[in-house]
Amino acid sequence: MSAESELPPGDRLPIGGTALQCRLAAAAIDLFYANGVQGTTVRQITGACGLTAGALYNHFTSKDYLLYVLVRDIHLTVDREMESTIATAGPGPTEQLGATVRLLVSHTAGHKKRSRVANREFTLLTGPRRQEVRAIRRRIRDRLTEILLAGAEQGTFNLAGGNDLAAATLASATISNMCVHISEWTLENYPIGTPELQDRYAVMALRIAGAELLNGQPEPRSPRA
Amino acid sequence: MSAESELPPGDRLPIGGTALQCRLAAAAIDLFYANGVQGTTVRQITGACGLTAGALYNHFTSKDYLLYVLVRDIHLTVDREMESTIATAGPGPTEQLGATVRLLVSHTAGHKKRSRVANREFTLLTGPRRQEVRAIRRRIRDRLTEILLAGAEQGTFNLAGGNDLAAATLASATISNMCVHISEWTLENYPIGTPELQDRYAVMALRIAGAELLNGQPEPRSPRA
Repeated sequence: MSAESELPPGDRLPIGGTALQCRLAAAAIDLFYANGVQGTTVRQITGACGLTAGALYNHFTSKDYLLYVLVRDIHLTVDREMESTIATAGPGPTEQLGATVRLLVSHTAGHKKRSRVANREFTLLTGPRRQEVRAIRRRIRDRLTEILLAGAEQGTFNLAGGNDLAAATLASATISNMCVHISEWTLENYPIGTPELQDRYAVMALRIAGAELLNGQPEPRSPRA
Repeated sequence: MSAESELPPGDRLPIGGTALQCRLAAAAIDLFYANGVQGTTVRQITGACGLTAGALYNHFTSKDYLLYVLVRDIHLTVDREMESTIATAGPGPTEQLGATVRLLVSHTAGHKKRSRVANREFTLLTGPRRQEVRAIRRRIRDRLTEILLAGAEQGTFNLAGGNDLAAATLASATISNMCVHISEWTLENYPIGTPELQDRYAVMALRIAGAELLNGQPEPRSPRA
């Protein structure tokens, strides 16, 4: 089976799912990643788990519902971890920003398949499901914006264009997009591993924020997520 | 008609197209942007120009071919302008990077619809057409990587993770992605105009590159693209 199914319990999808739901979810992530949601059949998902096509409906009401649960729970996982990461990083915006970027990179580089599925396929969701996921995405971006704005107001950061909400929003969009994008371009056997990518992205994020850095070569050293 | 059809001749699509091809192309961009390629019919494209559905085939062999020509020419336009922008920016990597980012932002913020269509829908292309567009995209990214690497080697830039090709490639991917992403998130009536966005993105790009900047508040002032 795939690497997705070998994750520790806290990383498994869906949140609070049964063992069989997690196996089906892991198979679905692999298939959605490789072939897209529209290119994946229920039969392929259940077949990867040694089950008949009809077995899916004992665990998820439809392929669309499975996609919704997966995308929602991937976003919820990031949002919850972000909340606790910020809470434990201490009060300094520099430490909070570094820790947050390390967390995002650990998801996008470390869980590349689920990250790509969540960020690419969420546009297939419709109605209230789509609104729900958009609200979580907005919350994630807002957490980053708050850190940037706090740092700007304290004089720790120096944002491009001014230390106001518009500049914090722009920097937040740039930094979160930069992290999300990792799942789009890193090759399967990309030579730079996740811990090194966390370091480099934390440096780039702090530079974007205009953080006060020593001799132009910042080396933010917060605990690795 | 749409703003796309009111562009100056040098900005019209397809490159070297007839007046009617340009009208059809402008209508197609608007529709592809609003509804996606798969949600757009030939009848809608021709209808927007006051023509019957069959009229398209006098000008483009199919909807797929029209998409290919549009995506190719949008990329070619950026690539050609990038080449001349770099050539006229002078030999300094700082000036070259600033001018290049301003150019990219002028395309992604100033021609938001075509930029979004090109960057979102190019994945629908298949076979040699896809390879051709991927090669142009790679060339665009390589131009940026070369500037970053030259700056790193000259000591003008200080890249995250080291002044080598891997770090230049990472910074290049981050910067180009940051510019491309503008077409995804700026709202129709976004309060920050294109010239101001050009300034802010140039600042962020130079920071990502670790350019030597005065008192932490860089204000790169190259001519606006």
